Amino acid sequence: MSDSSALARHIDEVALIDQHVHGCWLSAGERPRFENALNEANTEPLADFDSGFDSQLGFSVRNHCAPALGLPRHVDPQVYWDRRSELGEVEVARLFLRAAGVSDWLVDTGIGNATADVATLSELSGGRAFEVVRLEQVAERAAQAPGDYASAFKEILRSRMTTAVGTKSILAYRGGFEGDLTEPPASQVAEAAARWRDQGSTRLHDRVLLRFGLHQALRLGKPLQLHVGFGDRDCELHKSNPLYLLDFLRHSGNTPIVLLHCYPYEREAGYLAQAFNNVYLDCGLSVNYLGARGPAFIARLLEMAPFRKILYSSDGFGPAELHFLGAALWRNGIHRVLGGFVDSGDWSEADAIRVVDLMAHGNAARIYRLAGRTD
Amino acid sequence: MSDSSALARHIDEVALIDQHVHGCWLSAGERPRFENALNEANTEPLADFDSGFDSQLGFSVRNHCAPALGLPRHVDPQVYWDRRSELGEVEVARLFLRAAGVSDWLVDTGIGNATADVATLSELSGGRAFEVVRLEQVAERAAQAPGDYASAFKEILRSRMTTAVGTKSILAYRGGFEGDLTEPPASQVAEAAARWRDQGSTRLHDRVLLRFGLHQALRLGKPLQLHVGFGDRDCELHKSNPLYLLDFLRHSGNTPIVLLHCYPYEREAGYLAQAFNNVYLDCGLSVNYLGARGPAFIARLLEMAPFRKILYSSDGFGPAELHFLGAALWRNGIHRVLGGFVDSGDWSEADAIRVVDLMAHGNAARIYRLAGRTD
Amino acid sequence: MSDSSALARHIDEVALIDQHVHGCWLSAGERPRFENALNEANTEPLADFDSGFDSQLGFSVRNHCAPALGLPRHVDPQVYWDRRSELGEVEVARLFLRAAGVSDWLVDTGIGNATADVATLSELSGGRAFEVVRLEQVAERAAQAPGDYASAFKEILRSRMTTAVGTKSILAYRGGFEGDLTEPPASQVAEAAARWRDQGSTRLHDRVLLRFGLHQALRLGKPLQLHVGFGDRDCELHKSNPLYLLDFLRHSGNTPIVLLHCYPYEREAGYLAQAFNNVYLDCGLSVNYLGARGPAFIARLLEMAPFRKILYSSDGFGPAELHFLGAALWRNGIHRVLGGFVDSGDWSEADAIRVVDLMAHGNAARIYRLAGRTD
Repeated sequence: MSDSSALARHIDEVALIDQHVHGCWLSAGERPRFENALNEANTEPLADFDSGFDSQLGFSVRNHCAPALGLPRHVDPQVYWDRRSELGEVEVARLFLRAAGVSDWLVDTGIGNATADVATLSELSGGRAFEVVRLEQVAERAAQAPGDYASAFKEILRSRMTTAVGTKSILAYRGGFEGDLTEPPASQVAEAAARWRDQGSTRLHDRVLLRFGLHQALRLGKPLQLHVGFGDRDCELHKSNPLYLLDFLRHSGNTPIVLLHCYPYEREAGYLAQAFNNVYLDCGLSVNYLGARGPAFIARLLEMAPFRKILYSSDGFGPAELHFLGAALWRNGIHRVLGGFVDSGDWSEADAIRVVDLMAHGNAARIYRLAGRTD
Repeated sequence: MSDSSALARHIDEVALIDQHVHGCWLSAGERPRFENALNEANTEPLADFDSGFDSQLGFSVRNHCAPALGLPRHVDPQVYWDRRSELGEVEVARLFLRAAGVSDWLVDTGIGNATADVATLSELSGGRAFEVVRLEQVAERAAQAPGDYASAFKEILRSRMTTAVGTKSILAYRGGFEGDLTEPPASQVAEAAARWRDQGSTRLHDRVLLRFGLHQALRLGKPLQLHVGFGDRDCELHKSNPLYLLDFLRHSGNTPIVLLHCYPYEREAGYLAQAFNNVYLDCGLSVNYLGARGPAFIARLLEMAPFRKILYSSDGFGPAELHFLGAALWRNGIHRVLGGFVDSGDWSEADAIRVVDLMAHGNAARIYRLAGRTD
Repeated sequence: MSDSSALARHIDEVALIDQHVHGCWLSAGERPRFENALNEANTEPLADFDSGFDSQLGFSVRNHCAPALGLPRHVDPQVYWDRRSELGEVEVARLFLRAAGVSDWLVDTGIGNATADVATLSELSGGRAFEVVRLEQVAERAAQAPGDYASAFKEILRSRMTTAVGTKSILAYRGGFEGDLTEPPASQVAEAAARWRDQGSTRLHDRVLLRFGLHQALRLGKPLQLHVGFGDRDCELHKSNPLYLLDFLRHSGNTPIVLLHCYPYEREAGYLAQAFNNVYLDCGLSVNYLGARGPAFIARLLEMAPFRKILYSSDGFGPAELHFLGAALWRNGIHRVLGGFVDSGDWSEADAIRVVDLMAHGNAARIYRLAGRTD
């Protein structure tokens, strides 16, 4: 496929809904902060012999982000670092957020107090921004509220969901998906909450309360996002295989459930998206970290999953390079994959353009009901 | 590789043994029946916002099946639907079965009373057709028969196997492969059968009786097919990883065991095909659903599995498009994969042609002993 | 990428450190010995209907090894067999070891008394060779030694590690990675050792003693190699998913841990290499067996793993073809993968050349501290 094809032009220009993202940095940091932010899985500082630049993500930053800062592609890491330091974190954020071609940011506010909030992301990017509420954060606040835990949880959630467009759970980091995920009875919730409050209501690991939160979210009808697969090493990756969700999904009703990141379980996630009318999947985080290997990942998302069930996100957090790079690598990857399908005669170009629209914004606009909303 | 190469011509013309297939529809249905039949995993009707045409399989129907009905490739779904309605289900079946280039159909008769039986498939296609007996169906009939369950099972199986060429188990749908799969003692079988009969002999989930059936099949010496991986959501997909079969396979003797479908466990299945002289794998169902991504799947089948252990099937069921499409997508995928090996110099063209013959029919003819048989 | 590119020339000429290999045969054998050696997973002789040549590895032998013996590529198996018989096993070994372009061989001496030892590998190849000590072998010798088991284990290990460069464990073959891998208390070790000695100290399966050995190796600071994934069918492949090592790795300190082979868990292994400063992965065994599908595997190694954490090995054992073929297929695969990254503009050629050096020898030289060592 030539780069001047209608498909190539369309991919280049299509507006994206980034359906799962976090805040970007607003204040200056040292180079180690930046390099560590190019490694998702490691929770410790990178070893002395290592560099965050020597990875697919690091190479992609030098390839795709450098030109956005007026530098040549594949520029030396030191030159790149000097340039972003010179611009300052806010200007870097403004440049990258605007270059991403994103119309709407759906922001998980559950982490990163030191990063841009929803309103700031909107202002810096010139796009709309909406909140996604993290259930484990609601739980922590309910534990600190006076009175009955369940009532407090419901009230906090209800209140935040008047403006928020969806919920998010990091159950994958709190023991994973294996085991019972049915709704617990009220008496068990009360007991578990009392126990947790006695223990100081720190980081929530109690399965009863985690299950309670999931089922409260299902009742809302707004999309429930689940962290799946790739993340930092606190995640029990082998227990976050989404196939462990089979029973939960069989009883999840009509509320859209969005499987995030998915790597290396994207084939399993795609299967679930075919198996359940309310299951979706996205490519966030993974596409950034895979860099030059991103097209192969995007191709796998396009296996078993019906085309009306696939979403875009960057999962950007920290350096605004990640908010931009998600979009740049997605456009690049979709171009190669769908262009390949068209070149081989498997797909028509018109179909490819239509599927781009579904994945870029159509599916997300439908399930988050963004049309006509104001942020 | 040019399409006029000897390899391309050979792939185009080679006769296939479809070693695992079901009946096709013979009577007219509405469009929702057809669209739902383009989604394997979902057991509910497709959601209103969805369409079975917006998937790799749906795009493949429009690309490969449309020309067989005299329509342009990538034709509009409505035009396609109108054309197949106009022809009628039996004429559609005749057209697609004959266009598949299949010499022998090995038919799992365990589902679909409303579809073509073995003799009708033979007649409509102009090829030979043989039965594969589903063990769980034998169990259900044995439960309904008078007298000792084990004796009834053996007698029904013996009788049907006088003409049938193999057996099939859907253990993956009945709890999966994890756990003990040794042969149970006769006393346990009798107890389990009594319990099941008391419960009304509905859908078999009893592990003792499932294990009994598997070991009866092993004794026959004829190939035993196992559903592995991809299927509908009643399947416990995480428990149908074929690696859970390791202990069973270690004690399975010489009876050929064929791992069907395999996705997303095709690498594990290929490993088992290398590890055990009696283990085989095939590509059925998966190749249809992967559409434009089928070549990548076929390439993975050609990793650890020895070339004398890989088989072809479509697993077609319902719309006869699936019986044809399996063959069309297999030819297309094998062409791209082996053509790529030849182009890169990794394989000689003569080797590629020989391996095509093994996979298309040679291996199946050997293990099912089809040479000289009459259907 | 043209084959005359700087990258192609560099890959062709770069010296490799084969960081995990075994001895090669030195004495003549019959053709079945050779064909069985082309199947890793099967522990029984190949079936009559099968041939070790009809596999990706078999095709690769005919493609890459035949020219090294003065034969045309894709030569007939019988001609190949006649030629290697005519040369004799030692001359075959000398030819292939020298043709591999390997500067250093790190030799696991835990199997194969009938194959070349460390000194012979060095002499035949003209390169350096160092020992890697297998922990389960140390355990067996400690069980046979008089007195306290733990003391004997430590003394044998200490003594062998004065010259050896690393250790190796085959825990994957002794129950796998699932379950508790913490260091056992001394009293439990003494009890377990007494029990094992009473039972005759045959093949070690006791988890307490296996865990004891791992933690002794961690204390040494020299790299600890772990068999992961693909191997023969005695391996509990589903229990050798390296994600089961998460807890062990979280408490493994700074000792380099090298995940060997990895297939089909290379994505999981790459994730761990990103998540832990001390985790590495390699491609040994897998690249040989994947043949024409090796480039796809090598590409997957280059996903989540930082580039300073990826190593080369052949895992050659038996026919010296395997010691050579690992290198030939690695060069071929790296060329296609990195050449593809450069052609698509994702990587610069200079970066690709630098990453080749890291993987070929730089990373291994660093962690095994080979610079300036004498063998």
